[in-house]
Amino acid sequence: MSLSVRILKTAQAAKKASHQLASVPAKERDRALRLMARAILAGRSYLIKENSRDLAAAGRAGYAKALIDRLTLTPRIIQGMADSVRATVRLKDPIGEDLGTFKRPNGLLIKKIRVPLGVVGIIYESRPNVTSDCAALCLKSGNAVLLKGGKEAVHSNKAIFKVLKDALSSTSVPPQALQMIDPVDRRAVQELLKLEQYVDVIVPRGGEELIRFVAENSRIPVIKHFKGVCHVYVAARADLQMARRIVLNAKVQKPGVCNAMETLLVDKAVAKKFLPAALADLKKAGCELRGDAATRAMVRGIKTATQKDWSTEYLDLILSVKVVDGLQEAVDHINTYGSRHSDAIVTSDKAQAKQFLEGVDSACVYVNASTRFTDGYEFGFGAEVGISTDKLHVRGPMALEGLTSYQYQIYGQGQIRT
Amino acid sequence: MSLSVRILKTAQAAKKASHQLASVPAKERDRALRLMARAILAGRSYLIKENSRDLAAAGRAGYAKALIDRLTLTPRIIQGMADSVRATVRLKDPIGEDLGTFKRPNGLLIKKIRVPLGVVGIIYESRPNVTSDCAALCLKSGNAVLLKGGKEAVHSNKAIFKVLKDALSSTSVPPQALQMIDPVDRRAVQELLKLEQYVDVIVPRGGEELIRFVAENSRIPVIKHFKGVCHVYVAARADLQMARRIVLNAKVQKPGVCNAMETLLVDKAVAKKFLPAALADLKKAGCELRGDAATRAMVRGIKTATQKDWSTEYLDLILSVKVVDGLQEAVDHINTYGSRHSDAIVTSDKAQAKQFLEGVDSACVYVNASTRFTDGYEFGFGAEVGISTDKLHVRGPMALEGLTSYQYQIYGQGQIRT
Repeated sequence: MSLSVRILKTAQAAKKASHQLASVPAKERDRALRLMARAILAGRSYLIKENSRDLAAAGRAGYAKALIDRLTLTPRIIQGMADSVRATVRLKDPIGEDLGTFKRPNGLLIKKIRVPLGVVGIIYESRPNVTSDCAALCLKSGNAVLLKGGKEAVHSNKAIFKVLKDALSSTSVPPQALQMIDPVDRRAVQELLKLEQYVDVIVPRGGEELIRFVAENSRIPVIKHFKGVCHVYVAARADLQMARRIVLNAKVQKPGVCNAMETLLVDKAVAKKFLPAALADLKKAGCELRGDAATRAMVRGIKTATQKDWSTEYLDLILSVKVVDGLQEAVDHINTYGSRHSDAIVTSDKAQAKQFLEGVDSACVYVNASTRFTDGYEFGFGAEVGISTDKLHVRGPMALEGLTSYQYQIYGQGQIRT
Repeated sequence: MSLSVRILKTAQAAKKASHQLASVPAKERDRALRLMARAILAGRSYLIKENSRDLAAAGRAGYAKALIDRLTLTPRIIQGMADSVRATVRLKDPIGEDLGTFKRPNGLLIKKIRVPLGVVGIIYESRPNVTSDCAALCLKSGNAVLLKGGKEAVHSNKAIFKVLKDALSSTSVPPQALQMIDPVDRRAVQELLKLEQYVDVIVPRGGEELIRFVAENSRIPVIKHFKGVCHVYVAARADLQMARRIVLNAKVQKPGVCNAMETLLVDKAVAKKFLPAALADLKKAGCELRGDAATRAMVRGIKTATQKDWSTEYLDLILSVKVVDGLQEAVDHINTYGSRHSDAIVTSDKAQAKQFLEGVDSACVYVNASTRFTDGYEFGFGAEVGISTDKLHVRGPMALEGLTSYQYQIYGQGQIRT
């Protein structure tokens, strides 16, 4: 069978299963998830054995340590995968929720009811736990899922997939609702992206290059973020001790993720007082600093930030720093160079906080907290299938609600239009 | 200035105005709309004069009567345009609505707040009233709007646009929030569709060919329906008198619109009893009938429906008719050949109604009512910018809510991630 026919058949089977899944009750979907969690734990040694094949290949290929870390399955990580599936079970079933019922003067009763999207395609890299996280969220929300992992994790993903699929066999969730596409190469992705008739949404997770490839080649709607260029703005009336803690946390606690700070903006009213100590914290934590002229005039030993720095997602211990002339300049800088992901203001001034929230056009805007909280777990959504910087359909962490649409169900007594 | 630079500058100006508009209070946006309504009425003779230039050109070009009807502005239609703007004023302001506030165990307060989309591009054909309807809905919901009408309505649209824009001059709504792109040709649309940095969503309104062109050429997300192949299924336990009224209404009351019925499905249990009278009604109303073998065996003088008929949007007094062997065949037929727009069941059986609603994967599903009710006015949404058969973001009539996104506004007291 050719690649394109194989992927077409996979997508068609998923679509068919999604229609069957629409009538599987929530209780049974939850039971399937509990069996999946149990199967993950029971399959621990099999998963670790298959994972070791990927790790060996990664070693031979000389992959970077960060990638190998992301790829590695340990008993603790496997326990975390099962826990995450169980946490998803405990979330409220989104399907069938009444999103607003209203009656028209002609007697028509219009119900807006939450329904599954249908078939969700997830295209991801390296982390094998995405396989079980996304499978759980999609089945919980009544969707069929097409999983397409990276080739570096092929054996791990196949093993997790097999364990999950076997767990469905004693439930009334159709096993075809869970599909995996072999990570041959980009051609498989290209074929998948043409199947708008069978796949309702694509969520790419991974590096910017992968996401751009998906966005540019897809006929299916894509939910995504290209990158996270997140800012912390330390305002004129900030609690500077709080600001130091937030700035340090937002940059160094986990620098390789999309919600880490990449640019620090400091109001000129507090720059002299704030920058020396705050930048010393960051240097001590191993952070390379790149500043504008005003910053460099106040603190020694800082590289020059170029125009390119303001829109760069370092994903590393590097920070660009700029002194701004008031809140409006901070807002304009963020809207110009940011990525509409997560941005924070540190201030004790409520009016300024409001102005910042209204002015910054990003999915998540923070007052007096670290940008690092933008994720599904931290929001209490369970795992997440992705984080969206799009404005349509879903913004920020995408989990159960983001995996649903709605349908108008209209009840009449013979009404006709006149 | 080249076409591409001109359109780029227009979109940039709209984006800038959308940021300003974000802080214009609802009261002032409403005042602007009231002034717009007044200006439409005050400009009546100017609008009719400019419209006559389009009508003269349409006459010279020998356009079809239906198109000329859609193009014509009369005092009554102009009054309707003003009334529609005023009805939009009376709708609830969607902006700032709290869509759910929750507190996390770490003390973070997360507010999900409704915000405007930003810049909305509307690409439409013939009907000049779309200009004022869409301008009103977009400004009411805090969005800037880029209007691109058809060349057949160029003078009418320009005149309406001028009247509306002048009305904004004494308000704090930035006039740049209202933009019109000259209908040079398709190149203007192509240029616009590249500007994903400045335009947040595109809504094409018009024939299937225009919509496919937009969907295939856009880097900006598109909300749309390609066509409306709507069904009425007369079930085994239908009130057959009610079914006759609904079927006749859904087909003939206004056959040229997307929510009119194109295929009638009749359960074999009632076909013999129902079809002769119902099809006689339709013939009497001037309707051409195309039936499957079972239909033709029961009623004389009906053409043969081909495979192609089942997926055809006639937009005319033509109907395809099929006898089905029970509800499941009806649901499968609709999901296979329909366009996920609006489909109805006529039945007195509540269990069957539920099964139909759950099984049919369409934006609007009706029980015992005509499909003709799928529109913004009939739903009480005011006018509509379009009707969506997409599953993401908005489904069915798209009005104020569909013109919004949301933002997570997160309030902390110095929380950092550990």
